[in-house]
Amino acid sequence: MDGTAIRSRIADMLRDLPEAARSALVDPVPPRNLTDWSTLGPECPGALFCPRDTAQVAAVLAAANAAGIPVVPQGGLTGLCGGARPIAGAIALSLEKMSGIEDLDEASSTMTVLAGTPLETVQRAAEAAGFYFALDLGARGSCAIGGNASTNAGGNRVIRYGMARDLILGVEAVLPDGTVVDALSKLIKNNTGYDVRQLFVGSEGTLGIITRLVLRLHPRPGCTHAAICGLADYDSALRLLTGARRKLGPTLSAFEAMWPDYWEVACAVPGVRDPLSGPHANTVLVEAQGTDETVDGPRFEAFLEEMFEQGVIEDAALSQSIGDVQAFWGVRDACAEFKTTLGPHHAYDVGLPTGAMDDFARACRTAIAEAVPGGRSVFYGHIGDGNLHLLGWQPGASSQPGQALDEAVYATVRDFGGSVSAEHGIGTTKKPYLEHSRSPEELEVMRRIKRALDPNMILNPGKVIDA
Amino acid sequence: MDGTAIRSRIADMLRDLPEAARSALVDPVPPRNLTDWSTLGPECPGALFCPRDTAQVAAVLAAANAAGIPVVPQGGLTGLCGGARPIAGAIALSLEKMSGIEDLDEASSTMTVLAGTPLETVQRAAEAAGFYFALDLGARGSCAIGGNASTNAGGNRVIRYGMARDLILGVEAVLPDGTVVDALSKLIKNNTGYDVRQLFVGSEGTLGIITRLVLRLHPRPGCTHAAICGLADYDSALRLLTGARRKLGPTLSAFEAMWPDYWEVACAVPGVRDPLSGPHANTVLVEAQGTDETVDGPRFEAFLEEMFEQGVIEDAALSQSIGDVQAFWGVRDACAEFKTTLGPHHAYDVGLPTGAMDDFARACRTAIAEAVPGGRSVFYGHIGDGNLHLLGWQPGASSQPGQALDEAVYATVRDFGGSVSAEHGIGTTKKPYLEHSRSPEELEVMRRIKRALDPNMILNPGKVIDA
Repeated sequence: MDGTAIRSRIADMLRDLPEAARSALVDPVPPRNLTDWSTLGPECPGALFCPRDTAQVAAVLAAANAAGIPVVPQGGLTGLCGGARPIAGAIALSLEKMSGIEDLDEASSTMTVLAGTPLETVQRAAEAAGFYFALDLGARGSCAIGGNASTNAGGNRVIRYGMARDLILGVEAVLPDGTVVDALSKLIKNNTGYDVRQLFVGSEGTLGIITRLVLRLHPRPGCTHAAICGLADYDSALRLLTGARRKLGPTLSAFEAMWPDYWEVACAVPGVRDPLSGPHANTVLVEAQGTDETVDGPRFEAFLEEMFEQGVIEDAALSQSIGDVQAFWGVRDACAEFKTTLGPHHAYDVGLPTGAMDDFARACRTAIAEAVPGGRSVFYGHIGDGNLHLLGWQPGASSQPGQALDEAVYATVRDFGGSVSAEHGIGTTKKPYLEHSRSPEELEVMRRIKRALDPNMILNPGKVIDA
Repeated sequence: MDGTAIRSRIADMLRDLPEAARSALVDPVPPRNLTDWSTLGPECPGALFCPRDTAQVAAVLAAANAAGIPVVPQGGLTGLCGGARPIAGAIALSLEKMSGIEDLDEASSTMTVLAGTPLETVQRAAEAAGFYFALDLGARGSCAIGGNASTNAGGNRVIRYGMARDLILGVEAVLPDGTVVDALSKLIKNNTGYDVRQLFVGSEGTLGIITRLVLRLHPRPGCTHAAICGLADYDSALRLLTGARRKLGPTLSAFEAMWPDYWEVACAVPGVRDPLSGPHANTVLVEAQGTDETVDGPRFEAFLEEMFEQGVIEDAALSQSIGDVQAFWGVRDACAEFKTTLGPHHAYDVGLPTGAMDDFARACRTAIAEAVPGGRSVFYGHIGDGNLHLLGWQPGASSQPGQALDEAVYATVRDFGGSVSAEHGIGTTKKPYLEHSRSPEELEVMRRIKRALDPNMILNPGKVIDA
């Protein structure tokens, strides 16, 4: 269906829409709703709805479904793969006005929130009640918890607390035909048939629109310790990871590896300080969240000493304060400034077996150098979760050779049995490479699920998978 | 379709079956394959297949699907709800000959196993490699890991490690039409489209037959401490839980509450010793798995002391050895002997908001006493996971009034917004009460999923949900 046909259907739909739902229409469409944080640029929807409650979401979806008009759900619009970018002339449905904490249940350690609530608001509400909401990522101030759910967001502390999927106990979601599915369970254990909740988490708004969530809270950590460790090789990083898992046990809350190419670029960012002297083949940020300074502080120090004695660590800096912990994270978070310091580049987020990451980095570095004249790359990531990030670029090129970079990276991912998306999702930008990571039979199962829940194919069509 | 019609179809199917698949036929059917651990009694299948590999599973399923013959998957046959009990005259397909560990990947902390492998074999293989497979339940010696997956088994340490779902990174499953779905990922992070794996976990063999699994391993705990705590009321149990979460942090590995009715019956089991003096309104077993005796031992003691000082605990026994830990678990595991000491009774496994459990126990006790002449009940469970177990019975009755007990219990569960099955699944025995815990819209989503993956309705028909 082309843009003109869709627009004419939208006009008909608006005329017949119940008044309660029509009041959710926002016209003109504000610039923020024209795209997400991908590099795809703006696209104008035919209509933007910002519903105030689930009933309005249901009314708009039912009308769009009856008219066969595509609907693109939007949250904080911080996605990197185009999942929330409008489809020309179609409906954009933003959850931005459905924001707020509805319930905090101390005994169940749960919080019930509306899908448009910013992640940072959720984190602060948890903290104010003496709890900890463990999902955290750079876009915390802008991203919405519904978007975190629909993309199954990851972040820095997955090694301890899991992905968004692991922090969501219940959802309320609206199917394309306007049916409201109430699966707002607060129960950790609920073996009563299929896990309906999991269908909506991570499906990037292609099966239903999440409107409410029951989130799992953890106790607020009593203390945090971190160290930056310089290592002689990647094998030492693996030994350090094994040692951290055994000695720090479940207090281990982050394990971030940085290759020398990343380290050099990160330490050149203004305001970032290198806490070590001299270069290393790999540098790791280890963090542990404990309950008691007097118990967990000495344990963390003893762990580092043992790793030194075993020859795993060449050099290390140990945090003496929470300020030090933040400074160490400064090196890891420096990548947020690379757009300024490096110039244009392409960012990747791939999943790999932990043991294969160094071999992958070597192969991928070569592939990028061969695919693009002078092509450069840097590697870093949450290796304990099997998640590697990398950037690739052609220095000095005014227009970056995106497709050549994509092909070089994703072919290497396929060769290593990896995943083309560990955290960021598929959206539209990674869709051409989905089959690098999923078997034809898995893709067929996905198609059957899509057809079962969205037979008219109105929800985010063209994203993730074509059914 | 009646038994005779199915039998005639089976005869035709066997004649046309490829020789490689026919060799999986086991005739006559051994008594063990006639039922599971539910109270439903034996039922004879029309044919039993025990395939040796995934290709044989696929060949049998493809033939059964073409002929419209129902297939009931079987594992260790320890399920309590009839999920693996044969359907008269139909095919039973047991994974018992597909057993073994295929791979143990240290860097990824994963193990790849065949679905028929007993849980205890998995646990021991993990331990031999210095790891810990955290799923544990009473039937460990008999139950198969594929059955644990297809029922999303829970057990004693969910509060720390999660359900089976949280310990499964990848699956290989065969669809009813014989399609082999390879989703054997070792990756914790894999945001490439829908989570296909989750469809098969917990669906009790109604969507596909799991043939292989990638399991998540944890580091082997360095030390274990436990205490039995006598409390003045349920509110103290909630305060103790909050304290344990804060002070023991992620080392907290079990929190088992036992009401006085349970405590009395458990301590009367031969060989079980009451470590406390005098009765309490609630008794809790707290366990923590640490990394280092010298650090985690004092922390556990300090936690108990603080709870005493705050008046949360009336009396407590602290483990001095791993023998003590096992003795404390003896009281909690005594329920395995209740068949002998109590006589016939009905066992329930319900999910409830943690804060509501004592009110539920009171209401349910009254409901059972009113529904059944002289009706008695005992209550215990993993309250930190929102999971309560209970037994109900009519003392002295030669035939237990199962339906009256079920109705009394499940009506109370519905009134409290709980789940009719926290761990055990639905099978056939809980199917009449499924709608007490799931909304009509959730049930409709389940039906759509069932129709999408099993359009001929051959996989475990009549179990969990009718589509």
